Amino acid sequence: MACPRGRCFARLPSTWPTMNRLTHFRLCPISRYTRLAMSETGLEAQLVEEPAWEQRPQLLALNPAGELPVLELERGLVLCGPSAIGEYLAEEARARGHDIAPGLLPHDREDRAEARRLVDWCHRKLDREVTREMLIEKVYVRLSGRTEYVPDPDVLRAARANLRYHMSYLAYLAHQRRWLAGEDLSLADLAAAAHLSCLDYIGEVPWDDYPVARGWYARLKSRPSFRALLADRIPGLPPPLHYTDLDF
Amino acid sequence: MACPRGRCFARLPSTWPTMNRLTHFRLCPISRYTRLAMSETGLEAQLVEEPAWEQRPQLLALNPAGELPVLELERGLVLCGPSAIGEYLAEEARARGHDIAPGLLPHDREDRAEARRLVDWCHRKLDREVTREMLIEKVYVRLSGRTEYVPDPDVLRAARANLRYHMSYLAYLAHQRRWLAGEDLSLADLAAAAHLSCLDYIGEVPWDDYPVARGWYARLKSRPSFRALLADRIPGLPPPLHYTDLDF
Repeated sequence: MACPRGRCFARLPSTWPTMNRLTHFRLCPISRYTRLAMSETGLEAQLVEEPAWEQRPQLLALNPAGELPVLELERGLVLCGPSAIGEYLAEEARARGHDIAPGLLPHDREDRAEARRLVDWCHRKLDREVTREMLIEKVYVRLSGRTEYVPDPDVLRAARANLRYHMSYLAYLAHQRRWLAGEDLSLADLAAAAHLSCLDYIGEVPWDDYPVARGWYARLKSRPSFRALLADRIPGLPPPLHYTDLDF
Repeated sequence: MACPRGRCFARLPSTWPTMNRLTHFRLCPISRYTRLAMSETGLEAQLVEEPAWEQRPQLLALNPAGELPVLELERGLVLCGPSAIGEYLAEEARARGHDIAPGLLPHDREDRAEARRLVDWCHRKLDREVTREMLIEKVYVRLSGRTEYVPDPDVLRAARANLRYHMSYLAYLAHQRRWLAGEDLSLADLAAAAHLSCLDYIGEVPWDDYPVARGWYARLKSRPSFRALLADRIPGLPPPLHYTDLDF
Protein backbone atom coordinates (compact mmCIF):
# COMPACT_ATOMS: atom_id res chain seq x y z
CA MET A 1 0.00 0.00 0.00
CA ALA A 2 1.19 3.48 -0.75
CA CYS A 3 1.96 5.93 1.99
CA PRO A 4 -0.77 8.60 2.21
CA ARG A 5 0.62 11.80 0.80
CA GLY A 6 -0.64 15.26 0.04
CA ARG A 7 -3.63 14.82 2.22
CA CYS A 8 -3.96 14.51 5.88
CA PHE A 9 -7.53 14.26 6.81
CA ALA A 10 -10.76 13.90 5.08
CA ARG A 11 -11.85 17.48 4.72
CA LEU A 12 -10.37 19.09 1.64
CA PRO A 13 -11.21 17.20 -1.53
CA SER A 14 -9.47 18.56 -4.61
CA THR A 15 -12.79 19.02 -6.35
CA TRP A 16 -15.71 20.00 -4.18
CA PRO A 17 -18.85 18.01 -4.73
CA THR A 18 -21.66 20.21 -5.92
CA MET A 19 -23.97 18.05 -3.85
CA ASN A 20 -23.61 15.31 -1.29
CA ARG A 21 -21.72 12.36 -2.73
CA LEU A 22 -21.38 8.82 -1.43
CA THR A 23 -18.48 6.74 -2.72
CA HIS A 24 -19.58 3.17 -2.12
CA PHE A 25 -19.83 -0.38 -3.38
CA ARG A 26 -23.16 -2.13 -3.83
CA LEU A 27 -22.25 -5.21 -1.78
CA CYS A 28 -20.20 -3.48 0.90
CA PRO A 29 -22.10 -3.85 4.20
CA ILE A 30 -20.95 -0.52 5.62
CA SER A 31 -21.86 1.24 2.36
CA ARG A 32 -25.32 -0.28 2.68
CA TYR A 33 -25.52 0.73 6.35
CA THR A 34 -24.76 4.30 5.26
CA ARG A 35 -27.32 4.25 2.46
CA LEU A 36 -29.99 2.99 4.87
CA ALA A 37 -29.13 5.62 7.49
CA MET A 38 -29.11 8.37 4.85
CA SER A 39 -32.44 7.26 3.49
CA GLU A 40 -34.02 7.00 6.95
CA THR A 41 -32.91 10.56 7.75
CA GLY A 42 -33.72 11.96 4.32
CA LEU A 43 -30.15 12.82 3.28
CA GLU A 44 -29.79 12.52 -0.48
CA ALA A 45 -26.51 11.98 -2.26
CA GLN A 46 -25.13 11.14 -5.64
CA LEU A 47 -23.83 7.55 -5.56
CA VAL A 48 -20.41 6.86 -7.07
CA GLU A 49 -19.28 3.26 -7.18
CA GLU A 50 -15.66 2.42 -6.35
CA PRO A 51 -13.89 -0.94 -6.69
CA ALA A 52 -12.28 -0.76 -3.25
CA TRP A 53 -10.21 -3.91 -3.83
CA GLU A 54 -8.16 -2.02 -6.46
CA GLN A 55 -7.00 0.52 -3.83
CA ARG A 56 -6.97 3.25 -6.49
CA PRO A 57 -5.15 6.51 -5.73
CA GLN A 58 -8.40 8.48 -5.84
CA LEU A 59 -9.85 6.32 -3.05
CA LEU A 60 -6.68 6.60 -0.95
CA ALA A 61 -6.75 10.38 -1.47
CA LEU A 62 -10.32 10.50 -0.22
CA ASN A 63 -9.81 8.03 2.62
CA PRO A 64 -6.24 7.02 3.52
CA ALA A 65 -7.70 3.87 5.10
CA GLY A 66 -8.61 2.79 1.56
CA GLU A 67 -12.03 1.72 2.78
CA LEU A 68 -15.61 2.34 1.79
CA PRO A 69 -17.86 4.19 2.12
CA VAL A 70 -16.87 7.86 2.01
CA LEU A 71 -19.63 10.42 2.44
CA GLU A 72 -18.76 13.90 1.13
CA LEU A 73 -21.21 16.54 2.27
CA GLU A 74 -21.77 19.63 0.21
CA ARG A 75 -20.82 21.78 3.20
CA GLY A 76 -17.28 20.41 2.76
CA LEU A 77 -17.15 17.75 5.42
CA VAL A 78 -15.98 14.26 4.45
CA LEU A 79 -17.03 11.33 6.62
CA CYS A 80 -15.26 7.96 6.67
CA GLY A 81 -15.92 4.94 8.86
CA PRO A 82 -19.16 3.65 10.37
CA SER A 83 -18.84 5.56 13.66
CA ALA A 84 -18.22 8.96 12.10
CA ILE A 85 -21.04 8.44 9.59
CA GLY A 86 -23.58 6.84 11.92
CA GLU A 87 -23.07 9.29 14.77
CA TYR A 88 -23.14 12.29 12.40
CA LEU A 89 -26.41 11.22 10.81
CA ALA A 90 -27.88 10.47 14.25
CA GLU A 91 -26.87 13.94 15.47
CA GLU A 92 -28.36 15.44 12.31
CA ALA A 93 -31.64 13.60 12.90
CA ARG A 94 -31.70 14.68 16.54
CA ALA A 95 -31.02 18.31 15.60
CA ARG A 96 -33.85 18.31 13.08
CA GLY A 97 -36.32 16.80 15.55
CA HIS A 98 -38.15 13.49 15.47
CA ASP A 99 -41.19 14.90 13.71
CA ILE A 100 -39.10 15.47 10.59
CA ALA A 101 -36.69 12.52 10.68
CA PRO A 102 -36.82 9.46 12.92
CA GLY A 103 -34.04 9.18 15.48
CA LEU A 104 -31.25 6.75 14.64
CA LEU A 105 -30.06 6.52 18.23
CA PRO A 106 -32.38 6.41 21.26
CA HIS A 107 -32.83 9.50 23.38
CA ASP A 108 -32.19 7.59 26.60
CA ARG A 109 -28.53 7.23 27.38
CA GLU A 110 -28.65 3.59 28.43
CA ASP A 111 -30.59 2.64 25.34
CA ARG A 112 -28.09 4.52 23.23
CA ALA A 113 -25.27 2.44 24.73
CA GLU A 114 -27.24 -0.68 23.87
CA ALA A 115 -27.69 0.41 20.24
CA ARG A 116 -23.99 1.20 19.95
CA ARG A 117 -23.08 -2.19 21.43
CA LEU A 118 -25.02 -3.89 18.64
CA VAL A 119 -23.67 -1.61 15.91
CA ASP A 120 -20.15 -2.52 17.07
CA TRP A 121 -21.13 -6.17 17.14
CA CYS A 122 -22.17 -6.04 13.48
CA HIS A 123 -19.36 -3.91 12.09
CA ARG A 124 -16.60 -5.64 14.03
CA LYS A 125 -17.59 -9.18 15.04
CA LEU A 126 -20.16 -10.15 12.39
CA ASP A 127 -18.03 -8.49 9.72
CA ARG A 128 -14.84 -10.27 10.80
CA GLU A 129 -16.38 -13.68 11.41
CA VAL A 130 -18.82 -13.83 8.52
CA THR A 131 -19.56 -11.03 6.07
CA ARG A 132 -16.03 -10.04 5.12
CA GLU A 133 -14.88 -13.62 4.62
CA MET A 134 -17.94 -14.58 2.58
CA LEU A 135 -17.75 -11.50 0.36
CA ILE A 136 -14.03 -11.93 -0.31
CA GLU A 137 -14.51 -15.59 -1.25
CA LYS A 138 -17.67 -15.25 -3.27
CA VAL A 139 -17.60 -11.71 -4.70
CA TYR A 140 -14.47 -9.58 -4.38
CA VAL A 141 -11.92 -12.11 -5.71
CA ARG A 142 -14.09 -12.74 -8.77
CA LEU A 143 -14.70 -9.05 -9.41
CA SER A 144 -10.97 -8.35 -9.15
CA GLY A 145 -10.57 -10.37 -12.34
CA ARG A 146 -9.94 -13.90 -11.08
CA THR A 147 -13.16 -15.19 -12.60
CA GLU A 148 -12.00 -18.82 -12.34
CA TYR A 149 -11.54 -18.56 -8.55
CA VAL A 150 -13.27 -21.26 -6.53
CA PRO A 151 -14.19 -20.18 -2.98
CA ASP A 152 -12.22 -21.95 -0.26
CA PRO A 153 -14.64 -24.52 1.22
CA ASP A 154 -12.98 -24.36 4.66
CA VAL A 155 -13.45 -20.59 4.86
CA LEU A 156 -17.09 -20.86 3.75
CA ARG A 157 -17.76 -23.67 6.23
CA ALA A 158 -16.31 -21.67 9.14
CA ALA A 159 -18.19 -18.51 8.13
CA ARG A 160 -21.47 -20.44 7.82
CA ALA A 161 -21.02 -21.98 11.27
CA ASN A 162 -20.27 -18.54 12.71
CA LEU A 163 -23.31 -17.04 11.00
CA ARG A 164 -25.59 -19.44 12.90
CA TYR A 165 -24.39 -18.00 16.20
CA HIS A 166 -25.15 -14.49 14.99
CA MET A 167 -28.57 -15.52 13.65
CA SER A 168 -29.46 -17.12 17.00
CA TYR A 169 -28.59 -13.95 18.79
CA LEU A 170 -30.50 -11.74 16.35
CA ALA A 171 -33.51 -14.02 16.72
CA TYR A 172 -33.20 -13.83 20.49
CA LEU A 173 -33.17 -10.04 20.42
CA ALA A 174 -36.01 -9.87 17.90
CA HIS A 175 -38.06 -12.14 20.15
CA GLN A 176 -37.52 -9.91 23.20
CA ARG A 177 -37.98 -6.52 21.60
CA ARG A 178 -39.78 -4.71 18.85
CA TRP A 179 -36.49 -3.62 17.24
CA LEU A 180 -33.01 -4.93 18.00
CA ALA A 181 -31.99 -2.30 20.54
CA GLY A 182 -35.43 -1.59 22.03
CA GLU A 183 -38.80 -0.10 21.16
CA ASP A 184 -37.60 2.01 18.25
CA LEU A 185 -35.73 1.40 15.05
CA SER A 186 -32.07 2.39 15.48
CA LEU A 187 -28.65 2.19 13.87
CA ALA A 188 -28.44 -1.33 15.35
CA ASP A 189 -31.20 -2.56 13.01
CA LEU A 190 -29.63 -0.83 10.04
CA ALA A 191 -26.21 -2.33 10.79
CA ALA A 192 -27.51 -5.88 11.17
CA ALA A 193 -29.76 -5.57 8.12
CA ALA A 194 -26.93 -4.15 6.01
CA HIS A 195 -24.74 -7.18 6.70
CA LEU A 196 -27.56 -9.68 6.32
CA SER A 197 -28.70 -8.11 3.05
CA CYS A 198 -25.22 -8.66 1.56
CA LEU A 199 -25.23 -12.25 2.78
CA ASP A 200 -28.77 -12.70 1.47
CA TYR A 201 -27.72 -11.45 -1.96
CA ILE A 202 -25.23 -14.32 -2.18
CA GLY A 203 -27.78 -16.80 -0.82
CA GLU A 204 -26.05 -17.43 2.50
CA VAL A 205 -28.74 -16.65 5.09
CA PRO A 206 -30.51 -19.76 6.46
CA TRP A 207 -33.83 -17.93 6.98
CA ASP A 208 -35.89 -21.10 7.36
CA ASP A 209 -34.12 -21.94 10.60
CA TYR A 210 -34.68 -18.48 12.09
CA PRO A 211 -38.30 -17.44 11.54
CA VAL A 212 -38.25 -14.73 14.22
CA ALA A 213 -35.18 -13.11 12.68
CA ARG A 214 -36.91 -13.39 9.30
CA GLY A 215 -39.94 -11.54 10.68
CA TRP A 216 -37.74 -8.70 11.91
CA TYR A 217 -35.89 -8.57 8.57
CA ALA A 218 -39.15 -8.60 6.60
CA ARG A 219 -40.30 -5.50 8.48
CA LEU A 220 -37.07 -3.72 7.58
CA LYS A 221 -37.20 -4.95 4.01
CA SER A 222 -40.61 -3.30 3.58
CA ARG A 223 -39.33 0.14 4.53
CA PRO A 224 -38.80 2.67 1.73
CA SER A 225 -35.12 2.98 2.76
CA PHE A 226 -34.58 -0.63 1.68
CA ARG A 227 -35.90 -0.29 -1.86
CA ALA A 228 -32.67 0.84 -3.48
CA LEU A 229 -30.76 -2.04 -1.91
CA LEU A 230 -33.20 -4.56 -3.29
CA ALA A 231 -32.73 -3.13 -6.78
CA ASP A 232 -28.92 -3.56 -6.69
CA ARG A 233 -27.46 -6.07 -9.11
CA ILE A 234 -23.86 -7.24 -9.67
CA PRO A 235 -23.31 -8.23 -13.32
CA GLY A 236 -22.72 -11.98 -13.60
CA LEU A 237 -23.80 -12.54 -10.03
CA PRO A 238 -27.60 -12.55 -9.76
CA PRO A 239 -29.21 -12.77 -6.29
CA PRO A 240 -31.54 -15.67 -5.38
CA LEU A 241 -35.22 -15.17 -6.26
CA HIS A 242 -36.30 -14.48 -2.67
CA TYR A 243 -33.86 -11.55 -2.40
CA THR A 244 -36.40 -8.97 -3.53
CA ASP A 245 -39.46 -10.82 -2.24
CA LEU A 246 -41.01 -8.87 0.65
CA ASP A 247 -42.93 -11.97 1.73
CA PHE A 248 -40.03 -14.44 1.52
CA MET B 1 -19.47 -21.24 20.49
CA ALA B 2 -22.47 -21.66 22.70
CA CYS B 3 -25.74 -20.03 21.90
CA PRO B 4 -26.39 -17.07 24.23
CA ARG B 5 -29.04 -18.08 26.73
CA GLY B 6 -30.64 -16.70 29.81
CA ARG B 7 -29.52 -13.21 29.04
CA CYS B 8 -30.45 -10.88 26.32
CA PHE B 9 -28.65 -7.65 26.75
CA ALA B 10 -25.98 -6.35 28.93
CA ARG B 11 -27.97 -4.70 31.64
CA LEU B 12 -28.99 -7.18 34.32
CA PRO B 13 -26.03 -9.01 35.84
CA SER B 14 -26.97 -11.75 38.32
CA THR B 15 -24.85 -10.12 41.00
CA TRP B 16 -24.68 -6.35 41.04
CA PRO B 17 -21.24 -4.90 41.34
CA THR B 18 -20.88 -2.88 44.52
CA MET B 19 -18.70 -0.51 42.55
CA ASN B 20 -17.72 -0.01 38.91
CA ARG B 21 -16.05 -3.11 37.54
CA LEU B 22 -14.02 -3.58 34.37
CA THR B 23 -13.60 -7.10 33.03
CA HIS B 24 -10.51 -6.90 30.85
CA PHE B 25 -7.25 -8.44 29.73
CA ARG B 26 -3.91 -6.67 30.19
CA LEU B 27 -2.83 -6.97 26.55
CA CYS B 28 -6.24 -6.46 24.93
CA PRO B 29 -6.07 -3.15 23.00
CA ILE B 30 -9.70 -2.26 23.57
CA SER B 31 -9.38 -3.03 27.28
CA ARG B 32 -6.43 -0.65 27.34
CA TYR B 33 -8.38 1.97 25.39
CA THR B 34 -11.10 1.73 28.04
CA ARG B 35 -8.64 1.97 30.93
CA LEU B 36 -7.07 5.08 29.38
CA ALA B 37 -10.46 6.71 28.75
CA MET B 38 -11.61 5.88 32.30
CA SER B 39 -8.46 7.27 33.79
CA GLU B 40 -8.60 10.45 31.69
CA THR B 41 -12.18 11.08 32.85
CA GLY B 42 -11.57 10.01 36.45
CA LEU B 43 -13.82 6.95 36.45
CA GLU B 44 -12.48 4.35 38.85
CA ALA B 45 -13.26 0.66 38.63
CA GLN B 46 -12.21 -2.63 40.10
CA LEU B 47 -10.24 -4.54 37.44
CA VAL B 48 -11.07 -8.22 36.92
CA GLU B 49 -8.96 -10.14 34.44
CA GLU B 50 -10.62 -12.58 32.10
CA PRO B 51 -8.95 -15.06 29.70
CA ALA B 52 -11.20 -14.17 26.76
CA TRP B 53 -9.77 -16.93 24.56
CA GLU B 54 -11.39 -19.55 26.85
CA GLN B 55 -14.89 -18.15 26.08
CA ARG B 56 -16.01 -19.01 29.62
CA PRO B 57 -19.75 -19.03 30.39
CA GLN B 58 -19.39 -16.08 32.77
CA LEU B 59 -17.97 -13.92 30.00
CA LEU B 60 -20.67 -14.98 27.53
CA ALA B 61 -23.29 -14.20 30.19
CA LEU B 62 -21.85 -10.72 30.61
CA ASN B 63 -21.27 -10.10 26.90
CA PRO B 64 -22.80 -12.53 24.38
CA ALA B 65 -20.17 -11.36 21.89
CA GLY B 66 -17.60 -13.09 24.12
CA GLU B 67 -15.33 -10.07 23.82
CA LEU B 68 -13.47 -7.79 26.16
CA PRO B 69 -13.73 -5.40 27.80
CA VAL B 70 -17.00 -5.19 29.72
CA LEU B 71 -17.57 -2.15 31.91
CA GLU B 72 -20.20 -2.63 34.63
CA LEU B 73 -21.23 0.63 36.24
CA GLU B 74 -22.53 0.68 39.79
CA ARG B 75 -25.73 2.34 38.58
CA GLY B 76 -26.51 -0.98 36.83
CA LEU B 77 -25.50 -0.23 33.27
CA VAL B 78 -23.18 -2.64 31.48
CA LEU B 79 -21.17 -1.36 28.51
CA CYS B 80 -19.62 -3.59 25.85
CA GLY B 81 -17.73 -2.64 22.72
CA PRO B 82 -15.51 0.36 21.99
CA SER B 83 -18.30 2.61 20.64
CA ALA B 84 -20.65 2.15 23.59
CA ILE B 85 -17.80 2.63 26.08
CA GLY B 86 -16.02 5.49 24.33
CA GLU B 87 -19.16 7.49 23.57
CA TYR B 88 -20.54 6.96 27.08
CA LEU B 89 -17.35 8.18 28.73
CA ALA B 90 -17.19 11.13 26.32
CA GLU B 91 -20.79 12.06 27.16
CA GLU B 92 -19.98 11.72 30.87
CA ALA B 93 -16.98 14.03 30.52
CA ARG B 94 -19.06 16.55 28.56
CA ALA B 95 -21.83 16.45 31.17
CA ARG B 96 -19.36 17.10 33.97
CA GLY B 97 -17.75 20.00 32.19
CA HIS B 98 -14.24 20.42 30.94
CA ASP B 99 -12.99 22.03 34.13
CA ILE B 100 -13.49 18.72 35.93
CA ALA B 101 -12.59 16.19 33.25
CA PRO B 102 -10.99 16.79 29.86
CA GLY B 103 -13.24 16.13 26.87
CA LEU B 104 -12.66 12.88 25.04
CA LEU B 105 -14.41 14.07 21.88
CA PRO B 106 -14.10 17.60 20.43
CA HIS B 107 -16.93 20.04 20.93
CA ASP B 108 -16.99 20.96 17.23
CA ARG B 109 -19.02 18.57 15.17
CA GLU B 110 -16.58 18.27 12.28
CA ASP B 111 -13.67 17.65 14.61
CA ARG B 112 -15.77 15.03 16.39
CA ALA B 113 -16.28 13.22 13.07
CA GLU B 114 -12.53 13.32 12.52
CA ALA B 115 -11.81 11.80 15.95
CA ARG B 116 -14.36 9.05 15.31
CA ARG B 117 -12.83 8.32 11.91
CA LEU B 118 -9.50 7.65 13.59
CA VAL B 119 -11.00 5.63 16.43
CA ASP B 120 -12.68 3.42 13.82
CA TRP B 121 -9.41 3.17 11.92
CA CYS B 122 -7.65 1.83 15.01
CA HIS B 123 -10.32 -0.53 16.30
CA ARG B 124 -11.20 -1.93 12.89
CA LYS B 125 -8.36 -1.57 10.40
CA LEU B 126 -5.27 -1.48 12.65
CA ASP B 127 -6.77 -4.21 14.82
CA ARG B 128 -7.57 -6.47 11.86
CA GLU B 129 -4.36 -5.88 9.92
CA VAL B 130 -1.86 -5.81 12.77
CA THR B 131 -2.71 -5.95 16.47
CA ARG B 132 -5.07 -8.90 16.49
CA GLU B 133 -2.82 -11.06 14.32
CA MET B 134 0.31 -10.23 16.29
CA LEU B 135 -1.33 -10.83 19.66
CA ILE B 136 -2.84 -14.16 18.60
CA GLU B 137 0.51 -15.37 17.26
CA LYS B 138 2.73 -14.10 20.04
CA VAL B 139 0.52 -14.02 23.15
CA TYR B 140 -2.93 -15.61 23.09
CA VAL B 141 -1.96 -19.00 21.66
CA ARG B 142 0.78 -19.39 24.25
CA LEU B 143 -1.43 -18.29 27.11
CA SER B 144 -4.11 -20.75 26.04
CA GLY B 145 -1.69 -23.53 26.99
CA ARG B 146 0.19 -24.20 23.75
CA THR B 147 3.49 -23.04 25.22
CA GLU B 148 5.49 -24.77 22.48
CA TYR B 149 3.70 -22.78 19.72
CA VAL B 150 5.98 -21.01 17.26
CA PRO B 151 4.40 -17.91 15.66
CA ASP B 152 3.70 -18.24 11.95
CA PRO B 153 6.45 -16.24 10.18
CA ASP B 154 4.19 -15.39 7.23
CA VAL B 155 1.55 -13.89 9.49
CA LEU B 156 4.15 -11.87 11.41
CA ARG B 157 5.77 -10.67 8.18
CA ALA B 158 2.44 -9.47 6.76
CA ALA B 159 1.45 -7.78 10.03
CA ARG B 160 4.84 -6.03 10.28
CA ALA B 161 4.52 -4.73 6.71
CA ASN B 162 1.01 -3.49 7.45
CA LEU B 163 2.16 -1.81 10.65
CA ARG B 164 4.57 0.39 8.65
CA TYR B 165 1.64 1.86 6.71
CA HIS B 166 -0.16 2.67 9.95
CA MET B 167 2.99 4.15 11.50
CA SER B 168 3.52 6.39 8.44
CA TYR B 169 0.01 7.69 8.75
CA LEU B 170 0.25 8.27 12.51
CA ALA B 171 3.52 10.14 11.94
CA TYR B 172 1.87 12.18 9.22
CA LEU B 173 -0.99 13.17 11.53
CA ALA B 174 1.36 13.85 14.45
CA HIS B 175 3.40 16.11 12.20
CA GLN B 176 0.34 18.13 11.15
CA ARG B 177 -1.39 18.47 14.47
CA ARG B 178 -0.78 18.67 18.19
CA TRP B 179 -2.86 15.55 18.82
CA LEU B 180 -4.06 13.02 16.25
CA ALA B 181 -7.51 14.49 15.64
CA GLY B 182 -6.66 18.16 16.21
CA GLU B 183 -5.61 20.59 18.91
CA ASP B 184 -6.84 18.54 21.84
CA LEU B 185 -6.30 15.04 23.13
CA SER B 186 -9.23 12.82 22.10
CA LEU B 187 -10.38 9.22 21.94
CA ALA B 188 -8.37 8.97 18.70
CA ASP B 189 -5.09 9.33 20.63
CA LEU B 190 -6.22 6.84 23.25
CA ALA B 191 -7.26 4.29 20.61
CA ALA B 192 -3.99 4.52 18.68
CA ALA B 193 -1.90 4.48 21.85
CA ALA B 194 -3.80 1.47 23.22
CA HIS B 195 -2.97 -0.59 20.14
CA LEU B 196 0.63 0.62 19.92
CA SER B 197 1.21 -0.04 23.62
CA CYS B 198 0.23 -3.70 23.13
CA LEU B 199 2.53 -3.95 20.12
CA ASP B 200 5.28 -2.19 22.05
CA TYR B 201 4.95 -4.69 24.89
CA ILE B 202 5.84 -7.48 22.46
CA GLY B 203 8.64 -5.41 20.90
CA GLU B 204 6.95 -4.92 17.52
CA VAL B 205 6.94 -1.13 17.07
CA PRO B 206 9.82 0.16 14.84
CA TRP B 207 10.09 3.47 16.75
CA ASP B 208 13.49 4.38 15.31
CA ASP B 209 11.98 4.76 11.85
CA TYR B 210 9.15 7.02 13.03
CA PRO B 211 10.58 9.72 15.34
CA VAL B 212 7.56 12.02 15.00
CA ALA B 213 5.19 9.22 15.99
CA ARG B 214 7.53 8.43 18.87
CA GLY B 215 7.34 12.03 20.05
CA TRP B 216 3.55 11.90 20.08
CA TYR B 217 3.59 8.54 21.90
CA ALA B 218 6.13 9.82 24.46
CA ARG B 219 3.77 12.67 25.37
CA LEU B 220 0.97 10.18 25.94
CA LYS B 221 3.22 7.80 27.82
CA SER B 222 4.02 10.58 30.31
CA ARG B 223 0.38 11.12 31.22
CA PRO B 224 -0.83 9.75 34.56
CA SER B 225 -3.46 7.68 32.70
CA PHE B 226 -0.67 5.63 31.14
CA ARG B 227 1.05 4.60 34.38
CA ALA B 228 -1.02 1.52 35.08
CA LEU B 229 -0.48 0.21 31.54
CA LEU B 230 3.29 0.54 31.89
CA ALA B 231 3.17 -1.49 35.11
CA ASP B 232 1.35 -4.43 33.43
CA ARG B 233 3.29 -7.67 33.17
CA ILE B 234 2.37 -11.02 31.61
CA PRO B 235 4.09 -13.90 33.46
CA GLY B 236 6.68 -15.55 31.23
CA LEU B 237 6.45 -12.74 28.69
CA PRO B 238 8.46 -9.72 29.83
CA PRO B 239 8.33 -6.51 27.76
CA PRO B 240 11.48 -5.00 26.20
CA LEU B 241 13.43 -2.64 28.44
CA HIS B 242 12.24 0.51 26.64
CA TYR B 243 8.59 -0.37 27.31
CA THR B 244 8.47 1.59 30.59
CA ASP B 245 11.08 4.16 29.63
CA LEU B 246 9.46 7.60 29.25
CA ASP B 247 12.49 8.83 27.32
CA PHE B 248 12.86 5.83 24.96
